[in-house]
Amino acid sequence: MNDKTDQFEMMDRYFRAANYVSVGQIYLMDNPLLREPLRGEHVKPRLLGHWGTTPGLNFIYVHLNRLIKEGDLDVLYICGPGHGGPAMVANTWLEGSYSEIYPDIGRNAEGMKKLFKQFSFPGGVPSHVAPETPGSIHEGGELGYALVHAFGAAFDNPDLLVACVVGDGEAETGPLAAAWHSNKFLNPRIDGAVLPILHLNGYKIANPTLLARMDDDELRNLFAGYGYDPFFVEGSDAMTMHGLMAATLDEVMGRIRDIQADARSDEASATRPRWPMIILRSPKGWTGPKEVDGEKVEDFWRSHQVPVSNARGDAAHRKILEDWLRSYRPEELFDAEGCLLPEIAALAPEGDKRMGALPHANGGLLKKELLLPDWKSFALDLPKPGGRIAEATRLMGAYLRDVISLNDHAKNFRLMGPDETTSNRLDAVFEVTDRVWMEKIEPYDVHLAREGRVMEVLSEHLCQGWLEGYLLTGRHGLFSCYEAFIHIVDSMVNQHAKWLKTSAELSWRKPIASLNYLLTSHVWRQDHNGFSHQDPGFADFVANKKADTVRLYFPPDANTLLWITDHCLRTWNRINVITAGKQPAPQWLTADEAEKHCKAGAGIWDWASTCPVGEEPDLVMACAGDVPTMETLAAVDLVRTALPDLKIRVVNVVDLMTLQSHSEHPHGFTDERFDALFTKDRPVIFAYHGYPYLIHRLTYRRTNHDNFHVHGFREEGTTTTPFDMAVMNQIDRFHLALAALRRLPQFAERSAHFAATLERKLEEHSAYVSEHGEDMPEIRDWFWPYGTAAKAGD
Amino acid sequence: MNDKTDQFEMMDRYFRAANYVSVGQIYLMDNPLLREPLRGEHVKPRLLGHWGTTPGLNFIYVHLNRLIKEGDLDVLYICGPGHGGPAMVANTWLEGSYSEIYPDIGRNAEGMKKLFKQFSFPGGVPSHVAPETPGSIHEGGELGYALVHAFGAAFDNPDLLVACVVGDGEAETGPLAAAWHSNKFLNPRIDGAVLPILHLNGYKIANPTLLARMDDDELRNLFAGYGYDPFFVEGSDAMTMHGLMAATLDEVMGRIRDIQADARSDEASATRPRWPMIILRSPKGWTGPKEVDGEKVEDFWRSHQVPVSNARGDAAHRKILEDWLRSYRPEELFDAEGCLLPEIAALAPEGDKRMGALPHANGGLLKKELLLPDWKSFALDLPKPGGRIAEATRLMGAYLRDVISLNDHAKNFRLMGPDETTSNRLDAVFEVTDRVWMEKIEPYDVHLAREGRVMEVLSEHLCQGWLEGYLLTGRHGLFSCYEAFIHIVDSMVNQHAKWLKTSAELSWRKPIASLNYLLTSHVWRQDHNGFSHQDPGFADFVANKKADTVRLYFPPDANTLLWITDHCLRTWNRINVITAGKQPAPQWLTADEAEKHCKAGAGIWDWASTCPVGEEPDLVMACAGDVPTMETLAAVDLVRTALPDLKIRVVNVVDLMTLQSHSEHPHGFTDERFDALFTKDRPVIFAYHGYPYLIHRLTYRRTNHDNFHVHGFREEGTTTTPFDMAVMNQIDRFHLALAALRRLPQFAERSAHFAATLERKLEEHSAYVSEHGEDMPEIRDWFWPYGTAAKAGD
Repeated sequence: MNDKTDQFEMMDRYFRAANYVSVGQIYLMDNPLLREPLRGEHVKPRLLGHWGTTPGLNFIYVHLNRLIKEGDLDVLYICGPGHGGPAMVANTWLEGSYSEIYPDIGRNAEGMKKLFKQFSFPGGVPSHVAPETPGSIHEGGELGYALVHAFGAAFDNPDLLVACVVGDGEAETGPLAAAWHSNKFLNPRIDGAVLPILHLNGYKIANPTLLARMDDDELRNLFAGYGYDPFFVEGSDAMTMHGLMAATLDEVMGRIRDIQADARSDEASATRPRWPMIILRSPKGWTGPKEVDGEKVEDFWRSHQVPVSNARGDAAHRKILEDWLRSYRPEELFDAEGCLLPEIAALAPEGDKRMGALPHANGGLLKKELLLPDWKSFALDLPKPGGRIAEATRLMGAYLRDVISLNDHAKNFRLMGPDETTSNRLDAVFEVTDRVWMEKIEPYDVHLAREGRVMEVLSEHLCQGWLEGYLLTGRHGLFSCYEAFIHIVDSMVNQHAKWLKTSAELSWRKPIASLNYLLTSHVWRQDHNGFSHQDPGFADFVANKKADTVRLYFPPDANTLLWITDHCLRTWNRINVITAGKQPAPQWLTADEAEKHCKAGAGIWDWASTCPVGEEPDLVMACAGDVPTMETLAAVDLVRTALPDLKIRVVNVVDLMTLQSHSEHPHGFTDERFDALFTKDRPVIFAYHGYPYLIHRLTYRRTNHDNFHVHGFREEGTTTTPFDMAVMNQIDRFHLALAALRRLPQFAERSAHFAATLERKLEEHSAYVSEHGEDMPEIRDWFWPYGTAAKAGD
Repeated sequence: MNDKTDQFEMMDRYFRAANYVSVGQIYLMDNPLLREPLRGEHVKPRLLGHWGTTPGLNFIYVHLNRLIKEGDLDVLYICGPGHGGPAMVANTWLEGSYSEIYPDIGRNAEGMKKLFKQFSFPGGVPSHVAPETPGSIHEGGELGYALVHAFGAAFDNPDLLVACVVGDGEAETGPLAAAWHSNKFLNPRIDGAVLPILHLNGYKIANPTLLARMDDDELRNLFAGYGYDPFFVEGSDAMTMHGLMAATLDEVMGRIRDIQADARSDEASATRPRWPMIILRSPKGWTGPKEVDGEKVEDFWRSHQVPVSNARGDAAHRKILEDWLRSYRPEELFDAEGCLLPEIAALAPEGDKRMGALPHANGGLLKKELLLPDWKSFALDLPKPGGRIAEATRLMGAYLRDVISLNDHAKNFRLMGPDETTSNRLDAVFEVTDRVWMEKIEPYDVHLAREGRVMEVLSEHLCQGWLEGYLLTGRHGLFSCYEAFIHIVDSMVNQHAKWLKTSAELSWRKPIASLNYLLTSHVWRQDHNGFSHQDPGFADFVANKKADTVRLYFPPDANTLLWITDHCLRTWNRINVITAGKQPAPQWLTADEAEKHCKAGAGIWDWASTCPVGEEPDLVMACAGDVPTMETLAAVDLVRTALPDLKIRVVNVVDLMTLQSHSEHPHGFTDERFDALFTKDRPVIFAYHGYPYLIHRLTYRRTNHDNFHVHGFREEGTTTTPFDMAVMNQIDRFHLALAALRRLPQFAERSAHFAATLERKLEEHSAYVSEHGEDMPEIRDWFWPYGTAAKAGD
């Protein structure tokens, strides 16, 4: 008992040291150890930071340190309330991992002064937990993703304990509310453990929180309903709380060990365990000022950011700050040089066991390259362009199947999807793996198992967050999603892109595998689900991110999709967005042609052009995307029968970033190269998969831009036929051909009759689909060239 | 008992009729009543639709009909599994509301034939519940929002019962998981009731669902934890299920009546009630084929879409379909003319009580115009441009306060925000209202109350969804949000925009109030929260939507913000995005000037220009957004001191859509008008609030586009000073002035020294902020004109 008391007293000193260093970061730019009375000029002119959540984070940190030391554990600390940046910086500095990464910030008074000043200071470190923060894989600026990141980190990391602090503000968000169900996908045999710590400090910026105002019974029910066994730790007296928290953590760790031992034994039970979690109720702004200017601060939302606002200019405020800082008794914590006293410092783990030095939090350190099969062995033999029909994603599925097989031993690849792996024709993967599922499995279920490389849940947020957590801890993966609904995770992608951008600027952060998307069931083939499922705007969103980070690929057929997939899986620190079709469609390029074309990113398709090689065309017909490519080729086919001497050049774009200026994007073509494709002065009819504006925006600086006429999605759609979708948006062969004719006044006279034919074709189409509910045979059967159709299924 | 049995038998006939009409829609284009044997040509060539969820929806519909009739209720049916479109169409057709709206689809055999054929057919109706569907406010294409829409509809509708069917697939999504907590904001005294019906049919497209595989204990805990009292209805025998469902609905309705009576009595209790909910377990594809091709279909995911795929071409499949259809015994349901037999039809309510005719589901019918105060009475007196400092949103808050007061009697306006109403300086509203909060209220809480016009929860999804539900049922509102985090609801905005676009094409759908956003705490003033909080890309996202639907406003100061706010609250069927600052900033326009400027949408600011009125400038300095405007004016101020004879024209853009071509957007300026502002050939330095590409994309067809040089957010940011944020992205006065000089070769020689001064200023800035942590006084104090600064707080 005495030992325990001594231990808790020492832990409380560590806790006080962390609180002291946290408050110092928020307020001080000088006099870090308060060796002299606090004066106005010691206080920063602009006070930016969040105190409220910080002491709770510090409290948890010191207790996790004890757990790590006593159990020799690897613990990843996910800090949901990432705005409590001072806590994570304070603790990594106290344990020494901070100074190892940033030697300029030493573990002494001088280092402490710099540490304090740099916080939220220009040229310094952000106020939130960020890539700059050692030990972190989670920013926490936008709330909602702590728990899903935690599970992503735990998958396939059997020896890892992920301690995930969920703030009670964050707990109100949708993604977090769904993330509790991640326990239905965590297998204790092969995965690590996630220990959620729901930190109820009661308040957000200016309101109480929903969960904190629920009574313990409701909370217990809620989390039991989610499948957890909740343990409550509640109070405000530090010493009492140390005892409660330590005892609870010991019990919880025992449960986790039992669950894992049971699952990893020979007689492993196949049921989902009831994982423990902790509900920690501690006051917001704990240990801070109780009142300021006569208003309640501690244990209230007024402590959320900076509880004492004018400590630089107002002596009374400064007194509150100084008393507050001195309440931690820094003289009992730091020696004359400003170093943490050795007996306190000894509480922290050592080496890589320190949470600030855990390799999993700098996943690139652990990343192993994927073993990849030869993509060409999956490629389609193609006798001639248009000579076969295939479903592009089905070939990709076969390739992914072998990726999974080849890396099975490493357990470092997962495929995520919101219940769409089969729908997206990737089901070859089920020849070698299953969908992971820890709920009941019935005899008639299909490819559900306790272990599997495929994760399916009807939540794009969970798919995205799991994958982010998985990648950030050094693994690989791909997220296959309906194109329209990837917007659900726009803001998550945004945050991940920001993380990548900043990480790339930090030499100590090693590159992680790219975040790869397959977007399929795309706008042009959501004819069956209708308007709500039709949106190609994710590309526009992604294109706003830093050029170093983003790539947009539109492979026009199966072999190009294979090359692009293979390529994306080899890259790092990128967000690769592949948009490709899953429906039977004509195939254009052999494997060799696909390789050459994809490596270039964009190029002339001579075989489809009517302009002799090397000659200047009358017209360029450009395309990006599978359906736009097919319609463009069909349009060329139509035009050349009517105007055989018209010189059309067909340009296909696979890598959309080639269009941007070379100065704007590393994949951007030089102006010379661009002009060589698109000419300097000929009309360009550009059929693009998405919203046409993106093409204008990418090409506005190009010589010939004023001659670009882009057809794309005009936000017209419903449940109809595939070709009718194209017609509604004027990206079909007839409209493209008409658009071409309009830009060729020199052919106007000769083409008048032909134009009338095209208009009539559009009317025939309308009449036909209204009567028959399907497209005209001549549309369905058209391939290349000259209507010599292969048959579907060929 | 006999009466009950008779009633259930009659209800079962109604249920069978609805199922019959549902299957007919999915499959048939002829022979609707099976008066002859089913032949291939009676079956549609493309089978598009979702059977799996449909029978459950039909089952619920007939039971709600009974409830409505017996209790004379107003019931809004929110169909979460909106892909079960056939059910809602079938039921509204059976009850007659469909044919009233679409007289061409009569209530007879001919009408039935048309009804069947049009479903998922080109030119017909979508496969999902959509704006075309009578009685619906909810598409359900993108899953997650059924429950939050339901609560939005129930707020301030005390006599409404919103029956909300939540599919078990949808229940896996984040927004839905959070939406259960909406009960903490529903006041039984002034709001209606929401009856959630969690429909566990077990499967998604190709997987079981999480909630369906949880046992009843876990489910009971989960929903008790969410604050509900769950009632289970479970089975597959129709007659048994009728009895169970009816008894449960009666009990549940009794509970709801008791809760409401209690809350509305004199001795109303002030505690949050435990609302009932129903958990309905029925087989997926209930009453459909048990097996097809030897594989399990009913009660499995194979029934999700079209259980019998080749009924047109394959006789065996056709036999299954015919047997299935005949199993409903249509001859017992419809008379010789194909009309539903009167004794069955009598089960449906009449007139507006029919769920397909409920006015709340066509909210424009109920919408009352808001009473709006005179915005000018809130306007700031301004002695001269730059003559005062103000926080724009604070003035808006005062205006909104009076909007709330003026419409207090009508209870038809709500203000939504994720805990940011005060942070966003709208707190004047708390002079007249509170935040609604049904959890515990402590004595020290601030502006929390059981009733209030302000709704705050840390979930953008809930704010958005509540507001959508509120608007769609005929009310008004505004959503105030941090700019960066509005991306969280991108996909919801997408779906709402699609709903508005389609609704506007249906004459029977009356216009609803616009969806209004205030985006503040914007990118340029998230210097304190750092990079994660910096993203101005929502404008790009919104700009992709139909021109008729979207508006983007960037008021540069308080008076323009007032005008724009007032304007937006008067509009309908729009998505209005207002981006404005909350920080103290110089003010430029008087009320009269603001009105004139905002009505125009964009215009020359002569007082800020150095180019005499009517003369052609050497250079245009354009700006959109408050910080870009301030930096532009400061740049002009700098340049004119150095080059007094340089003729600069300042153009400010409030309504971004003025930039787009008139043919593309109704607010777009004609080319003449555009050229009159931006010239045909002078350099234009355009400082834009967001990503620069948007300006290029909007203006690429304009005469002078090649001379546009746009400065905006370049995805550079961290925690720093406000001015440093501008410098990092080169949108600050020094970079803008330098950019101007670069485009003026005729002044190159004279301006070389000045350019060097500007470069030096940038270095000075860097050094100053690194040392002091705040911006140089000359930056902070600069206003207009010529550095004659007003003081902050003036």
